[in-house]
Amino acid sequence: MPATCSRCRSAAAEVNLPYAKLRLCARCFKDFYTNRIRRTVEDFKMFRSDDRVGVAVSGGKDSMALLHGLKEAFPAAEFVALHVDLGIRGYSEHCREKVEELVEMLDVELEVFDLQRELGFSIDDFKDTLYRRKVCSACGTIKRHLFEVLAGRAKTRVLATGHNLDDVVSMMLNNFFNRNWSQLVRLKPVLEPLMPNQTFKVKPLIKTPEDENLLYCLYSEIPFREENCPHAHLGRLRRNRETLEYLSKDNPNFKYQMLRTFLKLIPILEEHIEKPKLRKCEVCGYPSSSQICAFCRRVKIVKEARTSGNKGEPRRDGKKFRLKNKFGRCVFLTDEGCKIYAFRPEGCRLYPLVFDDSLKKPVLDELCPYREEFDIKKSDLERLLRLIEKLET
Amino acid sequence: MPATCSRCRSAAAEVNLPYAKLRLCARCFKDFYTNRIRRTVEDFKMFRSDDRVGVAVSGGKDSMALLHGLKEAFPAAEFVALHVDLGIRGYSEHCREKVEELVEMLDVELEVFDLQRELGFSIDDFKDTLYRRKVCSACGTIKRHLFEVLAGRAKTRVLATGHNLDDVVSMMLNNFFNRNWSQLVRLKPVLEPLMPNQTFKVKPLIKTPEDENLLYCLYSEIPFREENCPHAHLGRLRRNRETLEYLSKDNPNFKYQMLRTFLKLIPILEEHIEKPKLRKCEVCGYPSSSQICAFCRRVKIVKEARTSGNKGEPRRDGKKFRLKNKFGRCVFLTDEGCKIYAFRPEGCRLYPLVFDDSLKKPVLDELCPYREEFDIKKSDLERLLRLIEKLET
Repeated sequence: MPATCSRCRSAAAEVNLPYAKLRLCARCFKDFYTNRIRRTVEDFKMFRSDDRVGVAVSGGKDSMALLHGLKEAFPAAEFVALHVDLGIRGYSEHCREKVEELVEMLDVELEVFDLQRELGFSIDDFKDTLYRRKVCSACGTIKRHLFEVLAGRAKTRVLATGHNLDDVVSMMLNNFFNRNWSQLVRLKPVLEPLMPNQTFKVKPLIKTPEDENLLYCLYSEIPFREENCPHAHLGRLRRNRETLEYLSKDNPNFKYQMLRTFLKLIPILEEHIEKPKLRKCEVCGYPSSSQICAFCRRVKIVKEARTSGNKGEPRRDGKKFRLKNKFGRCVFLTDEGCKIYAFRPEGCRLYPLVFDDSLKKPVLDELCPYREEFDIKKSDLERLLRLIEKLET
Repeated sequence: MPATCSRCRSAAAEVNLPYAKLRLCARCFKDFYTNRIRRTVEDFKMFRSDDRVGVAVSGGKDSMALLHGLKEAFPAAEFVALHVDLGIRGYSEHCREKVEELVEMLDVELEVFDLQRELGFSIDDFKDTLYRRKVCSACGTIKRHLFEVLAGRAKTRVLATGHNLDDVVSMMLNNFFNRNWSQLVRLKPVLEPLMPNQTFKVKPLIKTPEDENLLYCLYSEIPFREENCPHAHLGRLRRNRETLEYLSKDNPNFKYQMLRTFLKLIPILEEHIEKPKLRKCEVCGYPSSSQICAFCRRVKIVKEARTSGNKGEPRRDGKKFRLKNKFGRCVFLTDEGCKIYAFRPEGCRLYPLVFDDSLKKPVLDELCPYREEFDIKKSDLERLLRLIEKLET
C-alpha cells in the first residue's frame, strides 16, 4: 500500500522529503514549496508583499519555478520577468520561447535585452577572443551587468535570482575552502547594492533544494528549457555537487546545516573584509573597481575581434609571445591590471618568486607588498629554476 | 628502476609525499620530518630552543614520535615526558612500559601520574557510573586535568601534545560544520592558558600528517603501543576521517589548505566569542566555569560508585525516572547545570518547545531567553504531540 501524504492524510504521497521527515502528495508539495518561498522572502525581508520585483529568468527550471512560485506566494506583488537573449545559436531562441510562454501563462510583464540586436554581438562571438576557453566567465559578467540594466528599465530596485540551496551551499563551501571570503559574503540571501541606484539582489530559493524546483515545474506544468548551453563545461560544477552529496549522504539536513553555519559566519567575516573601492565606469557609468568596468572591457574585446580580427591577445612572434617595456613599464600593464593575464608568461605566473642573481637562489621579491600572502610550493621553486635554466641556454 | 630520493639524489626513495611533490629515502625523510617540527615550533613561537617543555606522552605513535622528534629538533631544550597511567586493564601497563622504554632510550625525565595509586580508581571504574557509554569523554576530562597537574609537578609552563594534521583538521571541520566555534578556536597551534599558572598548550605536529608519525616511529625504531584501548569507540572518529580523505582525494594539499583556512578564521572568530568566565574550583583550585570543576565532579561520581554503588543517576521508580521539584525548582538543577543531563526526560529534551494549553498547540516557551537559537524541526513538534498524548492517557 502506498504511503499517504503526511499533510492532508488522504492523497497518496508522491514526494519524499527526508530532511523535513515528510511524504507529500502533489498538491501539498506545491503548497509546501510556495510557503517556503513566502517564508524565505519574509524572514530575510527580501521585499514587501506589494513591491515591484524584477525576476531574472533564463528559461531554466530554477528561475522558471521561481517566477511561478513568487506569483503564487505573493499575489499582490508586481513581478517583471527580466530576460537576456544571449544570441547563442541553437539555444537562446529556445530559452526565450519558453520564457515568453511562461509570462503569457502567468500574465506577467517581460523585459528582454537582446544582445545581438542592442549591442551587435552574441555570446558565441567570445569564441573568437581570448575568452575562447572561458566563455562562461565572460557570459556571467555580461549577464550580471545586463540584469542591472533591465532592472533599471523595468523601474525596480529588487532583483530576484533563481539560486537554489545546492547552488548556494556548494559555492559557499568552495569559496570557504579556498579562503575566498569576499566572494563568500556575496552569497547571502539579500545583497545590498554597492552603489545607490543599483538593485538589491535577493535569493528566494536559497532554502529550496535543486531537485524540488524540477518537481515543482513538472507538477505545475511550467515550461522550461530542455536544451543545454553548448558553451557549458560542467566539470568543476559537477565535482562541487558530488562533494556536497557526499557530505549530505548520512545527514539529509547537511545542506541546511551548512547554510545556517555560513549565514552566521558571513556577518562576522563582513566586518573583516575591506569593501571594494568603487567608482563610475568611464564608458557606461555603472559601478566599477577600475576606470573601465569588466562588462565594458569584455564588450570592447568582443567587438574588436568582430571588426579587426584582433583577439585581444598579445602579439605572437613566431611561436612565442613577446613582452615589451615602455617607460620602464610592461606595455600590457594598464590601470585595469594585466591586459593579458590569462596569457601571461611563466615568469609573471611565478611572481613574486624571483631569482636573486647575487644570492644565486630564488627569493620573494622585496618590492611586492603582498609577498607574504603567497603560498610558495617546492614545485614553484623547481619551475623557476627550470625557467632560469631554459633562459640561460 | 626504483626512483631516487628527491633530496640526496643518491639513495632509493621509499616515502612518497605527494603534497610536497617529494620522494624521499629513509634518512632524508627523517630530516624532513624533524625539520618540519622545528619550523612549526619556531613559526608559531611555541617555545624557545632552551626552554623546559612538558610533552604529554600516551605511548601511542603520535606522542612517541613527537617526543623523539622534539629531542632531535631542539637538542638544547629540556624535555620532560608526562604520562598518566589510566589503570585500564590489559592496556595501561603496556602503554607505560613503552613510554618508559622510550624515555630510557632518549635519556629524558619522566613524570607519571598513577590514577589508581594516587586517586584510588581507574578509568575502567567509569563503566559502573552514568558514564558507562561515555568512558572516553570522562577519560578526556581526567587526562586534560592531570596533564596540568603533571606540568606543575615538572615545573614547566609549556605542554606539548601529539595532535597531528589529520586530528586537528578533522576536528576543525567537524566543529565548523556544527557551528561549535568555541571549540574550534581552541584547536589553534598555541592555546594560551585560561588563568595564570596554567600551561601554554602547543601542537608541534599540527602540520604533520598522521601516517608520517607511524613512518617516523618505524624508521627511528621508536617503541609505541600496539594494543588498542578497550574503551575506544572509533565510529564517529572514523567517519570524520573518511570525510577528510574524501575531500583530499583529488587534492593532496587539501588538509594544509584547510589548516590555513582555519588558522585565518580563528582570530576572526575569537573576537566574536565570549571568553568563558572562570573561577577556582572549590575542591581542587583549578580553573572552572562552575563551582566544582568537571574533573572533580567526575572523580566524585566514580568514587561514590565504588563505595556506595550509587551510579550518579537519578532515582529509578519501577522502570521510570522520577523528577521532583523543591522550592519550585527541579532538584536535579544545580549551579553546574542539569545533574542528569544525559538522562533527562523527553520534556526537557524538547524544551524550549512546550505545549500551550490555551492555544492548544506547541509554542516556544517565552521564558526561555535563548528561544530563537533553536532549530525546531517538524519531527520535534510530532515528538511533543506524542508525548502529550502519552501523558494524557
